[in-house]
Amino acid sequence: MSMLEQVLVGGQWCASLDAQAGFRAEDPVRAEAIGPTFPISGAADVEAAMRAAIDVADALSAAPPTQIADFLERYAAAIEADADRLVALAHAETALPVEPRLRTVELPRTSNQLRLAAKAVREYAWTDPVIDTQGGLRAHRAPLSKPVLVFGPNNFPFAFNAIAGSDFASAIAARNPVIAKAHPSHPATSQRLAQLAHAALLEAGLPATAVQMLYHFDNALGLAWAGDSRLGAIGFTGSRAGGLALKAAADKVGVPIYAELSSVNPVFLLPGALAERGDALAQEFFTSCTMGSGQFCTNPGIVIVPKGEQGDAFVGATTQLFAKAEPKVLFSRGVQQNLARAIAGLCAAGAELLVGGNAGEGYRFQPTLLGVDGEVFLAHAESLQAEAFGPVSLIVRAEDLTAMQRIAASFEGNLTGTIYRPADGSDDASWQAIAPILRNKIGRLIANKMPTGVAVSAAMNHGGPYPSTSHPGFTAVGMPAAIRRFTALHSYDNVPEALLPQELRNRNPGAVQRMVDGRWTDGDLA
Amino acid sequence: MSMLEQVLVGGQWCASLDAQAGFRAEDPVRAEAIGPTFPISGAADVEAAMRAAIDVADALSAAPPTQIADFLERYAAAIEADADRLVALAHAETALPVEPRLRTVELPRTSNQLRLAAKAVREYAWTDPVIDTQGGLRAHRAPLSKPVLVFGPNNFPFAFNAIAGSDFASAIAARNPVIAKAHPSHPATSQRLAQLAHAALLEAGLPATAVQMLYHFDNALGLAWAGDSRLGAIGFTGSRAGGLALKAAADKVGVPIYAELSSVNPVFLLPGALAERGDALAQEFFTSCTMGSGQFCTNPGIVIVPKGEQGDAFVGATTQLFAKAEPKVLFSRGVQQNLARAIAGLCAAGAELLVGGNAGEGYRFQPTLLGVDGEVFLAHAESLQAEAFGPVSLIVRAEDLTAMQRIAASFEGNLTGTIYRPADGSDDASWQAIAPILRNKIGRLIANKMPTGVAVSAAMNHGGPYPSTSHPGFTAVGMPAAIRRFTALHSYDNVPEALLPQELRNRNPGAVQRMVDGRWTDGDLA
Repeated sequence: MSMLEQVLVGGQWCASLDAQAGFRAEDPVRAEAIGPTFPISGAADVEAAMRAAIDVADALSAAPPTQIADFLERYAAAIEADADRLVALAHAETALPVEPRLRTVELPRTSNQLRLAAKAVREYAWTDPVIDTQGGLRAHRAPLSKPVLVFGPNNFPFAFNAIAGSDFASAIAARNPVIAKAHPSHPATSQRLAQLAHAALLEAGLPATAVQMLYHFDNALGLAWAGDSRLGAIGFTGSRAGGLALKAAADKVGVPIYAELSSVNPVFLLPGALAERGDALAQEFFTSCTMGSGQFCTNPGIVIVPKGEQGDAFVGATTQLFAKAEPKVLFSRGVQQNLARAIAGLCAAGAELLVGGNAGEGYRFQPTLLGVDGEVFLAHAESLQAEAFGPVSLIVRAEDLTAMQRIAASFEGNLTGTIYRPADGSDDASWQAIAPILRNKIGRLIANKMPTGVAVSAAMNHGGPYPSTSHPGFTAVGMPAAIRRFTALHSYDNVPEALLPQELRNRNPGAVQRMVDGRWTDGDLA
Repeated sequence: MSMLEQVLVGGQWCASLDAQAGFRAEDPVRAEAIGPTFPISGAADVEAAMRAAIDVADALSAAPPTQIADFLERYAAAIEADADRLVALAHAETALPVEPRLRTVELPRTSNQLRLAAKAVREYAWTDPVIDTQGGLRAHRAPLSKPVLVFGPNNFPFAFNAIAGSDFASAIAARNPVIAKAHPSHPATSQRLAQLAHAALLEAGLPATAVQMLYHFDNALGLAWAGDSRLGAIGFTGSRAGGLALKAAADKVGVPIYAELSSVNPVFLLPGALAERGDALAQEFFTSCTMGSGQFCTNPGIVIVPKGEQGDAFVGATTQLFAKAEPKVLFSRGVQQNLARAIAGLCAAGAELLVGGNAGEGYRFQPTLLGVDGEVFLAHAESLQAEAFGPVSLIVRAEDLTAMQRIAASFEGNLTGTIYRPADGSDDASWQAIAPILRNKIGRLIANKMPTGVAVSAAMNHGGPYPSTSHPGFTAVGMPAAIRRFTALHSYDNVPEALLPQELRNRNPGAVQRMVDGRWTDGDLA
């Protein structure tokens, strides 16, 4: 298989040791293979990457924060400098629009995220230093000092790419070696990012083996790898079935796995909001649901609409918007097939197809709206809240506020929940009736905004209760919080000051914010 | 079974719904049953407790922090007021010494821990408020709003009791209902604590079902319960086998479990420390290893001693101290049998019995010292680092610094690691050679102190990498960190200020420390 592209293993680009086969990206518009052939790695590639990562872990743990930050910033700059090429590759492989999505939104988001991680590193923000002067105890968050394996999803070729996204930035910011498993639907994009990462690593003077990448391997090998106790942690974004299988393997050997699994992101429209601006909401909802062909973890998959005239008008307006829309291009045949299957499942469980429902040319699919009565939804809540990944949403018609409360109570864990309320606060009693129930089912509670925007903010929670993610206490987006996932808590008891890490010594190594005897301060210790 | 004691379920003391059998505590000194007969609960008790806890979860989430703190403080005061009785019960059931252990150390530690939890509640310290004014995002830690199940261990009848210890205080501080599973080796102590907790709950005006307790149930029921997805989280302290079984059940349904499993707490003696004060170290080590009959998670189970004259002198002095000591009373026949089995396992793996090794009258066991050559240890590192729970330690003789490094590298995850160094810093090169290796294997790195003291401090880490605990990022001791285990991350996006939780509103509800636009502040928002 001499025509296969090289993997990034052991600090250099090299031929796969044991490629099992090759694969190519596809142009989703034409459903045709494009670009070079990439290797599907076997166990030898995995073992080589693991050994290299294990060997470098302690050295990377000891790297100065400035060097890590320097890498992240050089990489961010390189991504921006290479934007034309990266965007062209990603567009060809994913069919996501160049503007505004790839060029103006996702690529700058990605470099910004790397820079925010660098900032958190320079400020030691993720290390949470705690000093108890009387007890002689000092604690902080430290690297895992073991390899972190990151599985990237199909839906963000830059911002969640295993070699450039939030999991990558978080794991490397915490000074852990990263082995990225690119998503096979955009291998050339991932390859280019990995080239830039590799070059930035060398420029920053970090060990070349700190970042490695494989393009693809089969599920059995993935499961075996997730069950390797030499790993420090796993980051995963993708399907629930895949994530749960990896989680089971990782759990068995005590490897922490941060898996973002699935979410239908319920949106409740209070009567007052519909009365105030029903037509505008229809447009807002349609845009959010079909943008990026609906391939977002935070796609508004279920909308709860009150019964009655104003609710009918909203459904009517929405149906028209969906009906007029062109079919949307999905990432792959797999996504297309899963979507058709998911819609069939919703219909079998009692949902009615309002508009759309069919696949189109290439990997296209019609924007699709389904409807169901609130009582039917409640009777089959489990089947009817299955995620349909794509430009699809289910409208649930609720009889009254009580029905809305019961529907809110029926949800399993989700990333987000949204309530639209009128600006004048006239529906606040309804908010107070629904919000506390919804609150405990979700990671982020949103007012009057569709859930698809996920800002890279210290106050973001892109996480939520199981089964939306594998742990309710962590976010995959937002610095420094996302970094904490890939850290270990370290306490020092009675250790002489000179033998402590920099950020735990008396002299503050910058304006690091530290909890000293119960108060946050950025000063030195007396 | 009319003679059975009552369980605390559904907000009151009541007869077990389906006791499968009864059990009594034992006096470990005489190996005789003492006190009343307590029920071994069946599935009906469990389900009743679960339903009551689920029903109260949302109300408890909404309870004012002052009320939670009031409960914790009343409970602390009640424990202190009842100290004579509690100490007498615990002494009878555990044979732990009244002074200083139970009366002067453990009981005040327990009430202090409850008060520190109350302080964290009053200060909102565990909620970690983060405000991003520009992004319109605010986040904090919130209750899980689901029941927390706490399994208490045998070795701290007060400070880790499922109804009074750190897991209990942490879970209730985060406003979650707690169901305590007392340890069957001290049921009367747990009963008395539960009576005090129940009364304090009512005095504080909190729902009576917020705290419930069962004494015992069989392993199969425990595993079924751990696998109930209606749970918010599980806290467990106990044996590795038991903890891993519960973890497997909880992992399967996505219930976070914080399990403290086992640890041998390696202690390295640098040559300079031996030269400086070898005899004093022998005494210090002997005291730490035999105190509380060695029944500590942080017992110094393995001591690494350099070969040569000074090392020989240390081993000689230590052996004499162990040889002169009386047999120590263990908690139960189970502990006694497991210890004999563990010692036999160590000997089978190549360790040599230096002194002790035998069970005595009642549940007594001789303080026991084993020895092994460093190379033998390295060849059988897995078997030779099995925990022997009791007054037992294994001395590993290391040829040189390199051997010490290799031994440090051979350890699996532990709660603590200790290095004894000379006061003049003459061995700091050796420290630097060993500490970075040991650091990544442990939660707390200690200098010149035995690991058995676990201060309740914000900078404590009573946690460590798997398999010492189930997650490297959390501590079971120390406020507010321990509370964070029982929380969910909640973000609010574009939510009007009036609809936010108190600690996320513009006006600071006290002097709450909040991260506002990247800086910690205790002021109001402009």
